[in-house]
Amino acid sequence: MSVADYMQQVGAQAKAAAKVLALVPTMAKNNALLAMADALDNAREALKAANKKDLMAGENNGLDAAMLDRLQLTDDGIDAMILGLKQVAELADPVGEITDMSYRPSGIQLGKMRVPLGVVGIIYESRPNVTVDAASLCIKSGNAAILRGGSEATHSNQAIAACVKQGLLAVGLPEAAVQVIATTDRAAVGELITLTDFVDVIVPRGGKSLIKRVSEEARIPVIKHLDGNCHVYIDDEACATKAINIAINAKTRRYGVCNAMESLLVAQSRADELLPQLAQGFQEFGIELRLCPQAMAKISNYTGNIVAATQHDWTTEYLAPVLSIKVVNDMQAAIEHINQYGSHHTDSIVTENYTKARSFMAQVDSSSVMINASTAFADGFEYGLGAEIGISTDKIHARGPVGLQGLTSQKYVVFGDGHTRG
Amino acid sequence: MSVADYMQQVGAQAKAAAKVLALVPTMAKNNALLAMADALDNAREALKAANKKDLMAGENNGLDAAMLDRLQLTDDGIDAMILGLKQVAELADPVGEITDMSYRPSGIQLGKMRVPLGVVGIIYESRPNVTVDAASLCIKSGNAAILRGGSEATHSNQAIAACVKQGLLAVGLPEAAVQVIATTDRAAVGELITLTDFVDVIVPRGGKSLIKRVSEEARIPVIKHLDGNCHVYIDDEACATKAINIAINAKTRRYGVCNAMESLLVAQSRADELLPQLAQGFQEFGIELRLCPQAMAKISNYTGNIVAATQHDWTTEYLAPVLSIKVVNDMQAAIEHINQYGSHHTDSIVTENYTKARSFMAQVDSSSVMINASTAFADGFEYGLGAEIGISTDKIHARGPVGLQGLTSQKYVVFGDGHTRG
Repeated sequence: MSVADYMQQVGAQAKAAAKVLALVPTMAKNNALLAMADALDNAREALKAANKKDLMAGENNGLDAAMLDRLQLTDDGIDAMILGLKQVAELADPVGEITDMSYRPSGIQLGKMRVPLGVVGIIYESRPNVTVDAASLCIKSGNAAILRGGSEATHSNQAIAACVKQGLLAVGLPEAAVQVIATTDRAAVGELITLTDFVDVIVPRGGKSLIKRVSEEARIPVIKHLDGNCHVYIDDEACATKAINIAINAKTRRYGVCNAMESLLVAQSRADELLPQLAQGFQEFGIELRLCPQAMAKISNYTGNIVAATQHDWTTEYLAPVLSIKVVNDMQAAIEHINQYGSHHTDSIVTENYTKARSFMAQVDSSSVMINASTAFADGFEYGLGAEIGISTDKIHARGPVGLQGLTSQKYVVFGDGHTRG
Repeated sequence: MSVADYMQQVGAQAKAAAKVLALVPTMAKNNALLAMADALDNAREALKAANKKDLMAGENNGLDAAMLDRLQLTDDGIDAMILGLKQVAELADPVGEITDMSYRPSGIQLGKMRVPLGVVGIIYESRPNVTVDAASLCIKSGNAAILRGGSEATHSNQAIAACVKQGLLAVGLPEAAVQVIATTDRAAVGELITLTDFVDVIVPRGGKSLIKRVSEEARIPVIKHLDGNCHVYIDDEACATKAINIAINAKTRRYGVCNAMESLLVAQSRADELLPQLAQGFQEFGIELRLCPQAMAKISNYTGNIVAATQHDWTTEYLAPVLSIKVVNDMQAAIEHINQYGSHHTDSIVTENYTKARSFMAQVDSSSVMINASTAFADGFEYGLGAEIGISTDKIHARGPVGLQGLTSQKYVVFGDGHTRG
């Protein structure tokens, strides 16, 4: 069968499964997730054996250490998948929720009912745990899922898919509720993102080149996550302790994550006082600093790398122990900088000033805007969404961490008693 | 200047205006709308003179009567625009609304703040009143608007644009908050829907060919409204009076609107009793009936046109005094029919059975699903949204009538006191 025909078949099966899944009671969905958790627990050896094949192939193909690390499936990783399934099972079912019920002057009673989107296509790289995370969120939100993992993780993903299938069949849900694409042919991605008859939304998770390609070529709405070039701005009226704690935490908690601070903005009036203290903090973590001329003048005796920042640094998501620092005149300059060079992901102000806090929150055009808090809080677990299928930097449909609610939409429901319109 | 350069300029100006508009206080936005209403009231003669130019050109170009009717701007039409502006001014401001505030276990306080989308591009045909409706909804929701009306209404739209501009300037809002494209060059549409740097969402309002073109060629998210092939299903357990009243109202209240019933489904067990009565009702309005064989057998002595329905009829939005009727075995058959042949716009069941009402509501995949109510209720005014910018048949972002809320999105806001993540 050609890749095109295969993907048509996958799409048609997903659409049929979505119709069933939309009406499955909460308990059955939860039981399917728990059965998947059991299946994973029972298949540890098979999962690790499949993963070993991928790791060996990856080494032979010259994958770098970071890629191999993301690819590896350890017992801890399997535990985390199992825990994730149990957590999603515990979340409230979003499907069928009716809100905003009110009587209109005409006498009809109007509300909004939350319903699944239908078929969700997810394209991802390396990490095999995404197979379980994505499957669980789609099932709980009543959507069928078509999963296309990276070719480097194909054995791991198929082994996980077998456990997912066991869980579905254990409670009589359609097998096609979650389909993991079997072919590693790259043409499958091109087919998936143009299956307008069958797929309702595409979620790409991976590097910029993947997301760029999907955004450009998809004929289906895309919930996309571009980069996380997050900022902390330390205001004239910041509390010094909060400022230093937040800046160090936002940069150093984890480097390879999208909510890590990549650029620190410091109000000119506080540069003399705070930059040396901040530098001391970053030095302990061996952070490379990329500094504007003003910041450069304030930091001396730094034992780590120091580089003069170029224009390019202000737009860069390092995902590494690297930080750009810029001294700005005031809050307004910080906001301009963030809205111009940032990626509309997560940005935070440190200030004790009430009016400035309100103004920063209103003006910064990002999916998460924070006051006196570390950007590291921007994720689905911290926001109480359970797992997340991604963090949207789009403005349409879902913005910020996307959990169950982002995989649903709302239809209007009208309750009448024979009402006609005059 | 080339059309491409002109549209780049329009886009850049809109984006700059959007930044201002996002922060304008509610009162200033309301005052701008009321100043526009005054300007329209004072410009009645100029508006009608401009409209006359369009009407004469339209006649010369052989526009049909329906097109000319939609194009015409009467005093009543101007009154309606003025009333619309006043109504939008009275609506609550969606911008800055914060909901779902809660403390997370980490101690951060999380909420969602409603914010404008940014720049909204609207492409429409014929009716010049859309210029005012769209402008008012965009301004109130804090968005800049780029409006591209039909070339047949260009003089009318420019005259209305002058009033909109007066209103903006009266309260010191940026003139570029609402830009009506000056050129009638069709290339402008192609440019508008690919202005990815400046435009956040495209709303096409018009015929299927326009919407198809925009959907296929846009590189920006589209809130689209395809056809309204709406159904009423009369169930075995329908109250006869409600069924007849609703069916007659849904078909005959207005023909050229997207919420008109185009297809009537009748449970087999009620066909003998109800079809003759329904036919009598439709006959008074001179409705042409397109009937399935079973329905054909039940209706006799009909003085209007009767035609045997073809497969094509089940998917057709007539927008005319024409109705297709099909006898179905039961509710499940009706649901299958609606989900297969309908357009996911608005569908209604007439029944007294509680369980079936719930089941129909859950299973029918439409932007509005109704019980014992006429499909004619599906619009922004009846739903309390004020004016509407369109009725979305999409599932992503906005579904059903799109008012102020559909022109906004929500960002996360986090209030901390120096919180760092462990």
